[in-house]
Amino acid sequence: MSNKPYVDFEPKWVKTPAPANSYRSIFRWGDPDFVKYPKESLYKLMKERFVMTDEDFKNYTGSIGMEEVKLDMPSKLDQVHIDALKEIVGEDFITTEDYPRLAVAYGKTGYDALRLRAGQIDSLPDVVVYPDTSEQVEKIVEYSTLHNIPLYVYGGGSSVTRGVEPTKGGISLDMRKRFNKVISFNEIDQTITVQSGMSGPQLEEALNNAPANFGASRKYTCGHFPQSFEYSSVGGWVVTRGAGQNSTYYGCITDIVMGQKYATPIGVIKTSSYPREATGPNLNQIMMGGEGAFGVLTEVTLKVFRYMPENRKRFSYIFKDWETAQKAAREMMQCEAGFSSVFRLSDPEETNLMLRLYNVDETPLWKMLNSKGYKDMERCLFLGFTDGEKGFSNNVAKNIKRIAKQFGGMSLTSFVTKSWEKGRFNDPYLRDTLMDFGVTTDTLECTVNWSNMSQVHRDVREVCHALPNTIVTTHMSHCYPQGANLYFIFITKMDDAEEFRRYHATILDAIQKSGASMSHHHGIGKMFGPWLEGSLGKTEYGVFKALKDYFDKDYNMNPGGTLGLDTPEDEKRFLK
Amino acid sequence: MSNKPYVDFEPKWVKTPAPANSYRSIFRWGDPDFVKYPKESLYKLMKERFVMTDEDFKNYTGSIGMEEVKLDMPSKLDQVHIDALKEIVGEDFITTEDYPRLAVAYGKTGYDALRLRAGQIDSLPDVVVYPDTSEQVEKIVEYSTLHNIPLYVYGGGSSVTRGVEPTKGGISLDMRKRFNKVISFNEIDQTITVQSGMSGPQLEEALNNAPANFGASRKYTCGHFPQSFEYSSVGGWVVTRGAGQNSTYYGCITDIVMGQKYATPIGVIKTSSYPREATGPNLNQIMMGGEGAFGVLTEVTLKVFRYMPENRKRFSYIFKDWETAQKAAREMMQCEAGFSSVFRLSDPEETNLMLRLYNVDETPLWKMLNSKGYKDMERCLFLGFTDGEKGFSNNVAKNIKRIAKQFGGMSLTSFVTKSWEKGRFNDPYLRDTLMDFGVTTDTLECTVNWSNMSQVHRDVREVCHALPNTIVTTHMSHCYPQGANLYFIFITKMDDAEEFRRYHATILDAIQKSGASMSHHHGIGKMFGPWLEGSLGKTEYGVFKALKDYFDKDYNMNPGGTLGLDTPEDEKRFLK
Repeated sequence: MSNKPYVDFEPKWVKTPAPANSYRSIFRWGDPDFVKYPKESLYKLMKERFVMTDEDFKNYTGSIGMEEVKLDMPSKLDQVHIDALKEIVGEDFITTEDYPRLAVAYGKTGYDALRLRAGQIDSLPDVVVYPDTSEQVEKIVEYSTLHNIPLYVYGGGSSVTRGVEPTKGGISLDMRKRFNKVISFNEIDQTITVQSGMSGPQLEEALNNAPANFGASRKYTCGHFPQSFEYSSVGGWVVTRGAGQNSTYYGCITDIVMGQKYATPIGVIKTSSYPREATGPNLNQIMMGGEGAFGVLTEVTLKVFRYMPENRKRFSYIFKDWETAQKAAREMMQCEAGFSSVFRLSDPEETNLMLRLYNVDETPLWKMLNSKGYKDMERCLFLGFTDGEKGFSNNVAKNIKRIAKQFGGMSLTSFVTKSWEKGRFNDPYLRDTLMDFGVTTDTLECTVNWSNMSQVHRDVREVCHALPNTIVTTHMSHCYPQGANLYFIFITKMDDAEEFRRYHATILDAIQKSGASMSHHHGIGKMFGPWLEGSLGKTEYGVFKALKDYFDKDYNMNPGGTLGLDTPEDEKRFLK
Repeated sequence: MSNKPYVDFEPKWVKTPAPANSYRSIFRWGDPDFVKYPKESLYKLMKERFVMTDEDFKNYTGSIGMEEVKLDMPSKLDQVHIDALKEIVGEDFITTEDYPRLAVAYGKTGYDALRLRAGQIDSLPDVVVYPDTSEQVEKIVEYSTLHNIPLYVYGGGSSVTRGVEPTKGGISLDMRKRFNKVISFNEIDQTITVQSGMSGPQLEEALNNAPANFGASRKYTCGHFPQSFEYSSVGGWVVTRGAGQNSTYYGCITDIVMGQKYATPIGVIKTSSYPREATGPNLNQIMMGGEGAFGVLTEVTLKVFRYMPENRKRFSYIFKDWETAQKAAREMMQCEAGFSSVFRLSDPEETNLMLRLYNVDETPLWKMLNSKGYKDMERCLFLGFTDGEKGFSNNVAKNIKRIAKQFGGMSLTSFVTKSWEKGRFNDPYLRDTLMDFGVTTDTLECTVNWSNMSQVHRDVREVCHALPNTIVTTHMSHCYPQGANLYFIFITKMDDAEEFRRYHATILDAIQKSGASMSHHHGIGKMFGPWLEGSLGKTEYGVFKALKDYFDKDYNMNPGGTLGLDTPEDEKRFLK
């Protein structure tokens, strides 16, 4: 974030790469060589807020996971099954070794990181398989169904809901190695069909280079850029109903998907790929959100968009307070002038942090803000950029400017947005650095309608702040004419997995009680599963059970809590 | 269409209103006092194309249905059930009389009209009930489930798929009389919640007058204007997954719906009303398309849009041929400059008819087209208008102009579009007028991707034209970056219901074989039901059966062929 050396004390930030085959290489985010740590001013602010001292940053609070993974947990799967799987994928593409098994056992929620740091292995697949083709996946699903072997899928591994965790052991399909190919590209229809294990960067790279790759007449973009972009997979986006940071223009993944193919226990399911249909309930929308509980997603057909970064208009504004800023954002979303691509409004507490994170505190803007009456812990930062055809893009930016002014917003130029762009995919690295000193950060998000936004914001923050010395920042992103996603980030001194889990549950309770939806784009997984039936209603939730019974009556697909489908009744939470 | 008197022979067009309680008042479209008939030049063209003479237009080919409805088909429902229903809705809101029963027995496909003209009563409800509240509907569903009485719903009655037809008798709920109220309006969220029986004009009127009706700060529009607008209901739009003529900008109904409430045999289903969610399969999308087979839709929450007709830009262009026109349309949809509201491209045969229908043959344009090389039966008419904020609307129109020019399109000014607007909701009246003389017209529509559009167009037209002396016109509307809806209209000499049905089936076969989707926005109903399983695939279609078994295991909700759910196996058609 800033390359300036520390003047006073600098904590013992772990700057060395995570060793190969180490625990750290599993729980740490992404690139083993990349390190991110707070600059000095931010470090000082944090100490103050967490009531910590330099002393607390001299030693790590626990293991930092540099040791090699060695488990005393041999595979419990019969050799006959392993041989059968070898028959399907080839013997080089299956393993029962410790490291590759642990590498696909966890996702990236704080709960996962804390457990791994403590060496707490709650779940482990018996075998990891690396499929190459849809036919292989179909055979594996058939086999696991026939022999009642639990089957899990690991795409990019960035789940924050315990979505990939093989709580019942069995087989885990690691899609990263081979299940990541382009199947077809159609420039007339502007669509691409890929295997579900393809990563975000692989897809974007393929599309940006469409002329060379497919003989296309122009470059394209996938339009889907979640914060986890670099370490997430197309399949993960789809089965969890994800959303990218540019979704306000490009749509969420549910808007981008044209068609899907699944290997399910009752056979292959292939949806249609028409832009719209009136042929009964929408099968694409039934399958998206299944989170692997109905079968394994093998192929996805996606819309693609023209790659026109030259038309992009960056903007950022500061508003005097959260209520006014919300009104401005709502007017921007409802005025029918087109939507900007990134559209992000931070609440006062997040603004306080972000202006430092984006180095605004090192510019003349900082003083000007105070002198113009945009007060710290009241002011709200709004930033984003537009996409699309030039005239469209200009018109969106022009209207945002008009409305920002109307609501007393002051332009901060494109500087802040550019800073945000630099860090947009690497904030998760910061978490690992802080966690070494017992400071945990994680996120929860939810959907709200405009009329309920202030209440949800207030209620959830109140619960988060009940834990002393906690920073809780909130932003609105993924906006719509009828509402928006509220994204809560909490940072607090905490190094115990169970404590994390209790805290997380308390916030989830608060989100639901406040009238917000449980998830806008992270999905449900096994972590949020106990709440789902209570959140949707018993009769409504019964639809999911009916679908599960149709596709996978023996519960072999991602079993052990996914969508709460096989959560024991006494573990379910009913708040309504 | 033209008020000029005929110079030569004028057919005996039926210009008198359909008498109250007559068959004609049921099978005729809409307003009993409104009459539409072709102008003389079009009449002459039609005679030529159908190989008919003035003699054929001197006498009606059959009954024109002026007689009063009198049936010898008494209600078969036990008095105890009728008394129980009276208990629920009050005794003034239930009837077993002939006329109101027949009035809800049919929709508006040509098959319905031909049957009614021939006095062929295949279906009739035993009793018609007029509910007032959702609670009443819930009690009726509960009662009909308990006693295994078939339950049907009649909204606007404009179904062209036999969607409303009570093929098993029982109860029909006529929603028009009382189930048409606004439940709530939320200006902050820009949403309205209404009872499902509300008609298009009732909804639009409520929104256009939002300041007076709800104390709102501005006027709104529903954005959903199917050709059937005046005689269709919100509930019908939703359960069939309809689309309005302005859907390219406002979206189809599946984009506009925020939330739904149903009375089902297993209880009330209430979906959430958030703009987006990642909480498993999307319940809103599961319920939309149910066509009454899962339960009765009682309440709908819809997005509303700002009413800004002052920003509308009308345009029309003529292209030299269908292939070039398609390419231009595709570029307009893919260039990311925003979408126009109405976006309609006619093929050469439709253009031939439309230029007359819109009176272009009476203007100097007519000659100019020929002299500029836009040849009859090759040229294609493209028209539409934009909506939205002024800058947005202007930018869309500007890009359409730019692209039209690029593909050799010539502007026809806004004149043609205005003519189209005048007739946009009343073309169905023309059908009734022609049918009196044994000329039948009807429509089929389907979704195609751009890369398959030419083939579908060619294949389906070929089959339609296999019947001699048939006019088949096609237009593309409801467009998307990935494809469009193709809308086929056939006009032919035909006055037998069974002949119609066979012809209709042949075209539907052709649509499916050509690779198009069975329906873009008309739905499936009982008429298209036999094709659905073959179209979607057995395993895929099984999802619908699983949902049906969950909601209505005894098949009392809209039974007798809806979505093919209880279609006998030997009546199903598998083409793939």
